[in-house]
Amino acid sequence: MYFHQEIKGCLSKTIHTEGLSENFLKEYLPTLKKTLQKLKKAHEEETLPLLRLPYLRTDIAALRDLVLEIQDDFTDTVILGTGGSSLGGQAFYALAHRETSHRLHFMDNIDPHTFQSLFKQLSFKSTLFVVISKSGNTAETLVQFMTCLQKVQKEVGTDSVRDHFIIITEPKPSPLRQLADFYHISLLDHDPKIGGRFSALSIVGLFPAMIAGVDPVLIREGAARVFDRLLSLDDPSNFGPAVGAALSHALEVKKGKTISVLTPYVDDLHYFSLWYRQLWAESLGKKGHGTTPVSGLGTVDQHSQLQLYLDGPSDKFHTIIVSSMENKGESISENFSKISADLKCFSFSTMGDLMEAEQRATIDTLIKNQRPTRVLEIPILSPDFMGTLMMHFILETIFMADLYGVDPFDQPAVEEGKVLAKKYLEKTIKERLHP
Amino acid sequence: MYFHQEIKGCLSKTIHTEGLSENFLKEYLPTLKKTLQKLKKAHEEETLPLLRLPYLRTDIAALRDLVLEIQDDFTDTVILGTGGSSLGGQAFYALAHRETSHRLHFMDNIDPHTFQSLFKQLSFKSTLFVVISKSGNTAETLVQFMTCLQKVQKEVGTDSVRDHFIIITEPKPSPLRQLADFYHISLLDHDPKIGGRFSALSIVGLFPAMIAGVDPVLIREGAARVFDRLLSLDDPSNFGPAVGAALSHALEVKKGKTISVLTPYVDDLHYFSLWYRQLWAESLGKKGHGTTPVSGLGTVDQHSQLQLYLDGPSDKFHTIIVSSMENKGESISENFSKISADLKCFSFSTMGDLMEAEQRATIDTLIKNQRPTRVLEIPILSPDFMGTLMMHFILETIFMADLYGVDPFDQPAVEEGKVLAKKYLEKTIKERLHP
Repeated sequence: MYFHQEIKGCLSKTIHTEGLSENFLKEYLPTLKKTLQKLKKAHEEETLPLLRLPYLRTDIAALRDLVLEIQDDFTDTVILGTGGSSLGGQAFYALAHRETSHRLHFMDNIDPHTFQSLFKQLSFKSTLFVVISKSGNTAETLVQFMTCLQKVQKEVGTDSVRDHFIIITEPKPSPLRQLADFYHISLLDHDPKIGGRFSALSIVGLFPAMIAGVDPVLIREGAARVFDRLLSLDDPSNFGPAVGAALSHALEVKKGKTISVLTPYVDDLHYFSLWYRQLWAESLGKKGHGTTPVSGLGTVDQHSQLQLYLDGPSDKFHTIIVSSMENKGESISENFSKISADLKCFSFSTMGDLMEAEQRATIDTLIKNQRPTRVLEIPILSPDFMGTLMMHFILETIFMADLYGVDPFDQPAVEEGKVLAKKYLEKTIKERLHP
Repeated sequence: MYFHQEIKGCLSKTIHTEGLSENFLKEYLPTLKKTLQKLKKAHEEETLPLLRLPYLRTDIAALRDLVLEIQDDFTDTVILGTGGSSLGGQAFYALAHRETSHRLHFMDNIDPHTFQSLFKQLSFKSTLFVVISKSGNTAETLVQFMTCLQKVQKEVGTDSVRDHFIIITEPKPSPLRQLADFYHISLLDHDPKIGGRFSALSIVGLFPAMIAGVDPVLIREGAARVFDRLLSLDDPSNFGPAVGAALSHALEVKKGKTISVLTPYVDDLHYFSLWYRQLWAESLGKKGHGTTPVSGLGTVDQHSQLQLYLDGPSDKFHTIIVSSMENKGESISENFSKISADLKCFSFSTMGDLMEAEQRATIDTLIKNQRPTRVLEIPILSPDFMGTLMMHFILETIFMADLYGVDPFDQPAVEEGKVLAKKYLEKTIKERLHP
């Protein structure tokens, strides 16, 4: 198994009427066989490029020289783009931010105050801007880009502008592409068949990762662990993502668990958990379906949300991600216990030891209070296990979509708001110019 | 009114069967009269110190010299503490982080890797540690403190340790207090009658705010705006927090809206929204009650959660916080529209204009899709409006607790896990020492 998924905290054997019976799950899982076969076929026939990503190397090989150049020429990279154009890269940067001297800034919003601060701290001569928008037509990203372009023009001169930008977008006509052509800015292709929220393992997530010094091959090898296993199976009953989706769906439909809480006990998984939140919500929130994803962080949420989780409505399915923290950090001196006997329990312990103890205590307490809880256990947070976690949840999302009968790859509901926003913007400007 | 609360997006007149009728709300609100009277009485008789905070000045006056000294002597302040000991200060620091040269680091977790990074970037000679724990007995905070104490001892010498720490805790015996006494570390009193998650407006939140250069009097004056209005009323029907609680409760009980989504369209309200999340969950998640708070951020969540909000289950009550962003940021040149006609709509607009248009478009789209939505409108995010927002939600939480019939000030369910964590930690250490 690529990592340990412990599901006994979701079973009626452990949490009684709040959980599912093993027999029920046994009967439920074969309904996912169709999805398993569909995925294997899509992989074989190369109809879903997302599924080939774990094994693809040419795209990242082609970027290596460019990345070395960037690392030589620049101290800072600003990533412009929102949603799926940003979250994968942010999740990977978390793996490197402690070590790398190259700073990445992910600008995923359009708050003018935040941009003002960014501009104040940047040295424009040594800053690269990477603009990511699949469609090349996202209003927020276009406005970010034009604002930064004007600023860079002022700071380094019009002739040098093209040296400070790289654009990732689909190879088809769009305003972003027209701007790129006009300013002779380098373009990298966003695969048209890979949607933004599924793009973390493509160059959309991996190009920023490489700039930060994270090995993209390791990430893909980690993802391949999960997909290798899928390819080796004929029955989904022992496949992690299928089991996860079946649990999630059955707990929702049979037990009213309409909220899916993801709580890693690793600070550097914070952005991963936001990435998961988008993946789950945008892929599944359709036709009245979709559990609501909640991103958490242990131990912090023990002091924020645990009271609600234990004693509030039992409407949540908990997924806790743990890794080994034992003995990490400096050992606490025995001397403190001479000052206060209450500190004796901490003698010779480390911060990591307490983190481990808190993980286990929370899991046990949730289960004792009959809250459905599964545990994903990775040995350590490394690029390959980040890839493994991502591929696990990508596939779990696709399995879940089939259980709902929705298309995981579209997002039809948000178009209306986008049109409206442009209309309001035009009205504001018109009134300002012709009051 | 202290700010505009627009609730028409929650009424059946606007969103039909998904909303509440005005008549129903009119009949519902007087049930909150008891709470209003209770709060007025508690204020008058000084039985709930939390309610006196907006008018208190002596405590912050007493800190002014200390704060000036800190600003002179140190470049960095590390705040150790979790949950209510951290979130208020973080919310206030967001108001100042762009301007102040004094860096604040809020360490609310016990990930050893995060502490390792912190230690790498600090200059210990110019760093102050502020340790905050109401009980003086929180395991995470004690371990953070002992780890930092050992490190500071090594870096600046045992004799100087006391100069680098300040402790905020209740005036009663505790291990934290024993450590303070032993090392002659300065102590500030945490009011025993103000619980951690209600402590933002006390020195717990305001001391870090002052170090960062935020005026605590403005924050309290902003909070007083809300409480002044409460004191002037005999009927809760026109009181924002009471209306908010009534809406929230009725939408939950009558319309199945079990999730409460707070989405500010201001980057600097991100930590405020995490503060709200703790306040709501820990105060209300009891005896099977409690809607689940979800912290959001606009426009980012339009590209992450909006698909689910519009087309997923209709189980959410939305609160959107907007402020005026019109014309903020640099104007976008008309020239871009010569490169691409699709960019014409952005000519002469600013990033702030787009932010405004997106706010309005999202609100309108939610309402058009019959999702209950209220809007809180502040003119600008300033220290006083941060105080106003906090007092609004503190009171809304207290009103909601009365509607549920639960005590907003306790958190009984989490004790079990705390005991268990210490037990597991002791077991790990024992096994390590005597394998």
